[in-house]
Amino acid sequence: MKILVLNCGSSSIKYQLFNMNDSSWEVMAKGGVEKVGLKGSFLKHEKDTGEKVLLEGEILDHQTGIDYILGVLNSERHGCISDLNEIDAVGHRVVHGGEMFNSSVFITDEVIHKMEDCIELAPLHNPPNLKGIGAISSLLPDVPQVGVFDTAFHQTMPKHAYMYALPQALYKKYGIRRYGFHGTSHRYVSARACEILGVDYNTQRIISCHLGNGASIAAIQNGKSVDTSMGFTPIEGLMMGTRCGDLDVGAVTYIMDKETIGTRSASTLFNKHSGMLGITGISSDMREVEEASEKGDENARLAMEMYDYRIKKYIGSYVAAMGGVDILIFTGGIGENGDITRSGVCKGLEFMGVEINESKNKGLRGKEQDISTSESKVRVMVVPTNEELVIAQDTKTIVEELSNK
Amino acid sequence: MKILVLNCGSSSIKYQLFNMNDSSWEVMAKGGVEKVGLKGSFLKHEKDTGEKVLLEGEILDHQTGIDYILGVLNSERHGCISDLNEIDAVGHRVVHGGEMFNSSVFITDEVIHKMEDCIELAPLHNPPNLKGIGAISSLLPDVPQVGVFDTAFHQTMPKHAYMYALPQALYKKYGIRRYGFHGTSHRYVSARACEILGVDYNTQRIISCHLGNGASIAAIQNGKSVDTSMGFTPIEGLMMGTRCGDLDVGAVTYIMDKETIGTRSASTLFNKHSGMLGITGISSDMREVEEASEKGDENARLAMEMYDYRIKKYIGSYVAAMGGVDILIFTGGIGENGDITRSGVCKGLEFMGVEINESKNKGLRGKEQDISTSESKVRVMVVPTNEELVIAQDTKTIVEELSNK
Repeated sequence: MKILVLNCGSSSIKYQLFNMNDSSWEVMAKGGVEKVGLKGSFLKHEKDTGEKVLLEGEILDHQTGIDYILGVLNSERHGCISDLNEIDAVGHRVVHGGEMFNSSVFITDEVIHKMEDCIELAPLHNPPNLKGIGAISSLLPDVPQVGVFDTAFHQTMPKHAYMYALPQALYKKYGIRRYGFHGTSHRYVSARACEILGVDYNTQRIISCHLGNGASIAAIQNGKSVDTSMGFTPIEGLMMGTRCGDLDVGAVTYIMDKETIGTRSASTLFNKHSGMLGITGISSDMREVEEASEKGDENARLAMEMYDYRIKKYIGSYVAAMGGVDILIFTGGIGENGDITRSGVCKGLEFMGVEINESKNKGLRGKEQDISTSESKVRVMVVPTNEELVIAQDTKTIVEELSNK
Repeated sequence: MKILVLNCGSSSIKYQLFNMNDSSWEVMAKGGVEKVGLKGSFLKHEKDTGEKVLLEGEILDHQTGIDYILGVLNSERHGCISDLNEIDAVGHRVVHGGEMFNSSVFITDEVIHKMEDCIELAPLHNPPNLKGIGAISSLLPDVPQVGVFDTAFHQTMPKHAYMYALPQALYKKYGIRRYGFHGTSHRYVSARACEILGVDYNTQRIISCHLGNGASIAAIQNGKSVDTSMGFTPIEGLMMGTRCGDLDVGAVTYIMDKETIGTRSASTLFNKHSGMLGITGISSDMREVEEASEKGDENARLAMEMYDYRIKKYIGSYVAAMGGVDILIFTGGIGENGDITRSGVCKGLEFMGVEINESKNKGLRGKEQDISTSESKVRVMVVPTNEELVIAQDTKTIVEELSNK
C-alpha cells in the first residue's frame, strides 16, 4: 500500500511516500516545499537512492505546492510512481485535535468541521493542515485521507493532570487545559523502545524526552500518556530553542507592564526571543551553544545547565507521578544526537536507578541504542523518532479497517 | 532580652513580644491590629495566660496601630511590661529583599534605602513593612531594629535554578528571576526537623512543604535552599487557596485576549479567583473543600487531587535536583493539620523511600512528629512553623553581635 504522508505548515509542506507492507515498509521518496506563498519558493526532493534535486518555482499556495509534489513523485525523471492512482491513501499530520480526537481518524466532512472547530486552539497550525486536506480532496478526490493528531496521544491524561488551577469557567468556555503536543513522537518512541527491549508496552512506566527545537517530555504508564510538559500551548514546560517554557505568570503581567507591550508582543517575546536564544544571546541551536560553552562563554554554559536542570526536574516529577520509572527515552534532534545533554540530564539520577554507560553514550548520534549500564534499574534508550512512519501506519490501519467493513 | 516582632501588612499589624534567653524563650504576649485605615479597626491581644481582649478604636495608620500595640503591652490591665524601655529590640518581617539581602540585617538608613529599592518587586508588601520600621523609629527611637526577609533564605539558589529562560536583558533591567518566599518558614522547619532528629543540618537533603493559604515547597541541601516553587512572585508553583500556581504563559495571553482584560484584571484572576476556589467554586479553604468532597462534590474531589498531585510532582523534581532526599517536612496550616493531604501526597512515593505510618499521621494536628514508618528511608516530619521565633532569634543574634563590637 503506497501512502503519502503530508505535514503542512504555514509556509512549508513536508512529504514522504511510503510503501507499506504488512511486515515491512520503505520510504520511496521524501522532501518538502519551502516558502509557500513567499518569494523564492522551491521544492527539495530526495529519492530512495539518496539522490537529491532542488526545483525552483512559484508556489503561491498549498494546493499548488501539493500539485507540484504529486507531479515530481509521478515524473519520469525524478519520480517513483508511474501513475498517481498508485497512491492508495494520504495521511496528514494535524497539530491540534482538542478534546475531540483521541486517536487518528478517517477524514470525512464531519471530521473537517471538527478540525475547523479546533482552529481557535491552534490558529497558526490547524489552518495549513486543513489546506493540505482540501488540496488532496480536489487533486486526488477518490483517495482516502487520514488525520493524525499531535495532541491525540495525550488525551488519556487524567483530569488532575490536565486541568489548570483556574476558574473552571475558563475550561468550559475556551477549553483552557493541558493538551500536550509531540504526541505522535512520544507514542512512537515509547512503543519502539519496548519493542527493542522485548517488554510489554502495556506494563511499563516510561518517560520520553523529545528534545528538538521544540521540546517536551511525557510520562507514559501502561501504554497511556498520563502527563506531559507542553500544555495549552507548546510554550509550557522545558526550555527550548526560542521558547521560555515554564515561567511565573506574575512575571508575565509584570513584564507586559514594564515594557508596555500587549499580548501579541508578549507572545512573540516568550515564543521567539526566549529559551536558549534569550539566555545566550547567541543562538537557539544547541550545537552552537555547546561550541560557545566549550570556548568559555558563561551565558552558553548557564543555558546548558538550565536546559539540563529543567529536564532533570521534569523526569523527577514524572517518576513521582508514576511511582517509579522503567524506561527513560531520549529523542528529537538534541535527544538523538546530544551526548552531552543526555549525560548532563542523567547525572544525579542514580538514586532512582538511572545509570548510563558513558562509552555507549559518547558520540552516539541518531541510532537506536540502550545507553544504560547493565546494572541500571532503568533502561535509558536513544530512539530516533519517526512521526511520519506512525502517520503512514495509522493511515494503513484505518484505510484497511474501512475497506474490510 | 525582650524582643517585639512585627509583621506589618497593608491593613494589618501582627505582633509578638518574646522574652529571649540564651537557652529558652517565651511569648509574653501576642496579637494583631486589623483593618488599619478602614472602618471598624480593632486590636486583638492575647496574654501569655491565654486571656484574650478585643479593643476597638480608630486606627488610621500603621504608626497609630503600633502606638496602640505599645500602649497595650505597657498597660496595667492587659500589659506584660511596666516600661517601654524594657523592649530591647524590634524585629520586622520584610517580604522582599531582592538580591540585596541574603540574611537578616540591622536596620540603618542605608538598609531602609535598599528596602525602598525593592518596593517595585513587592509593591503591596514592602511599603507597609517600611511603615512599621518608620513607626518604631519615631516611637522607640533608641531601640535597635532588625529586618528579616522572606526571600533571604533562597538567595543561595544556584543560577540555573533561579533564572528564567527569558532574554537576559529582562533580568538585568527588572530583576526578573526566581526569588522564592516563605524563606523564614522553610529555614525554621528544616533546621528544626534536624534538631528533632538529631542529625547535622549541613549534611541533609530536605524537602519542605509549606502548605497554607499560600503554599510553596523548597529543596534544601546541606543547609542551603537550592530551589523553591514560588518564583518572581508568590503566584508560581503549587496550587493555592486562590492562586493558580504553575500555568502555561500561552494560556495567560490567550485568556487576556478572549476575555479582553488587561494585566491588572489578569493578575486579579490568577491571584484571587483561581486555585482551590477556582476549581471548586466553593471555597479557598481546604477544610471546606474536604468537607464538600466527603459529601460527594466532584469539583472538590478534583481540587484535592490536583492539589496533592502538584505537591507530589514538585517533591519528585526536587528529589531529582538533589539526587535524593533524607527528610520530607510538612508545615503551614494544611501541612500541620491536614492528615488527608499528607497521606495523599506521600502515596506513590514509596519508590523513593517515603513511607508514612498512617496511625501516626491520622488526626495529627499542629504537633512536631515524625510520621514515617521506622523502615522509611526518608524521615517524614510534621513541624509547625514559627516564623516569629526566627525573627526574634535573628534579632537577638544581630543586636548582641553589634553590642559586642
